[in-house]
Amino acid sequence: MGALSPAREPKPPQQERSRATRRKLLEAAVSCLAERGWSGSTVSVVAERAGVSRGAAQHHFRTREDLFTAAVEHVAEKRQGALKAVAPNLPPAGSVARTRIVVEEIVGLYTGPLFRAALHLWVAASDEEQLRERVTALEARVGREAHRTAVALLDADEAVPGVRETVQGLLDMARGLGLANLLTDDAARRDRVVEQWAKIIDGVLNPE
Amino acid sequence: MGALSPAREPKPPQQERSRATRRKLLEAAVSCLAERGWSGSTVSVVAERAGVSRGAAQHHFRTREDLFTAAVEHVAEKRQGALKAVAPNLPPAGSVARTRIVVEEIVGLYTGPLFRAALHLWVAASDEEQLRERVTALEARVGREAHRTAVALLDADEAVPGVRETVQGLLDMARGLGLANLLTDDAARRDRVVEQWAKIIDGVLNPE
Repeated sequence: MGALSPAREPKPPQQERSRATRRKLLEAAVSCLAERGWSGSTVSVVAERAGVSRGAAQHHFRTREDLFTAAVEHVAEKRQGALKAVAPNLPPAGSVARTRIVVEEIVGLYTGPLFRAALHLWVAASDEEQLRERVTALEARVGREAHRTAVALLDADEAVPGVRETVQGLLDMARGLGLANLLTDDAARRDRVVEQWAKIIDGVLNPE
Repeated sequence: MGALSPAREPKPPQQERSRATRRKLLEAAVSCLAERGWSGSTVSVVAERAGVSRGAAQHHFRTREDLFTAAVEHVAEKRQGALKAVAPNLPPAGSVARTRIVVEEIVGLYTGPLFRAALHLWVAASDEEQLRERVTALEARVGREAHRTAVALLDADEAVPGVRETVQGLLDMARGLGLANLLTDDAARRDRVVEQWAKIIDGVLNPE
């Protein structure tokens, strides 16, 4: 087809290309952080990885802190969105089968590259003043959202005393399993812990 | 008293002074790692903090990796020793009061400077080849010992199906609570989670 063929794909509008660039940067930033840690993660390295010019990257994110906190938030939202999307396909509320799948999925949130990236950011923030406040706020937002999602998927009634803390402890355990997976592949042990804790949690949330 | 007075304190023998120097270095290394992270932690910085000459520090620890892995191991052993020492003063085995105290103490292992130091070391090890193998082995040793201590203090019978995984999940939860305490003081929320999960774990370990 000739260059002027009316059948060619229309060029995406400016705004849409800008959004796509932004998304590429955010995703490259998370994988960079997961693989190279905070000290190895700069705007330039991410721009190169995303195939974007350094200038374009800096147009989107003025500072290194902007880029990496936005990246962890973006990917966390995407992962939690995917988790919420499993809801219609879950076994009936109140069944141990459902609790088992939900516990597995929640633990899954903390064992991939996103958790590695977030962990690098948290640990860097504990030493760096200019990062600390932003990462603390980000962690609070992401943590609240994870809690809300867990409550909804487990069909847990937080008006019942102890239920809120049961779900919180589950999320803490999931984070701890993520940590245990940092240096070695902990999947086999993790599966056994998840199986047992799913039974325990089901007994608390759905007493006979 | 004169310099030759027979009543003066005897000078500690060489071996004992050497052990004391080593101990000072190990403790300074953990607090340095907890406060300044891996990138801010070198043998020189630790030697200065411990009031020891750089040469003496290097006599004890040939490399940075030697110093910091030995330090985390030393302090972890000391903490676990202190935890085991509470055993004779615990309420009777099989009581919820005992389970509560033990869960608190175990969670306490993961919320102080030692955990911050260990976390910095783990995260650095996930990026640095020469650190990774040693920290992985160290984590396995310390984790096994923590598990053994938890089983003994909880008087848990690992021959019963699910008990081993219940205790493992508790240690994972403790690690997750440590992580949640990294950027903010999470003590109030943590107390509520510990209270609820102590009840849950007691119900699993000591069914009526």
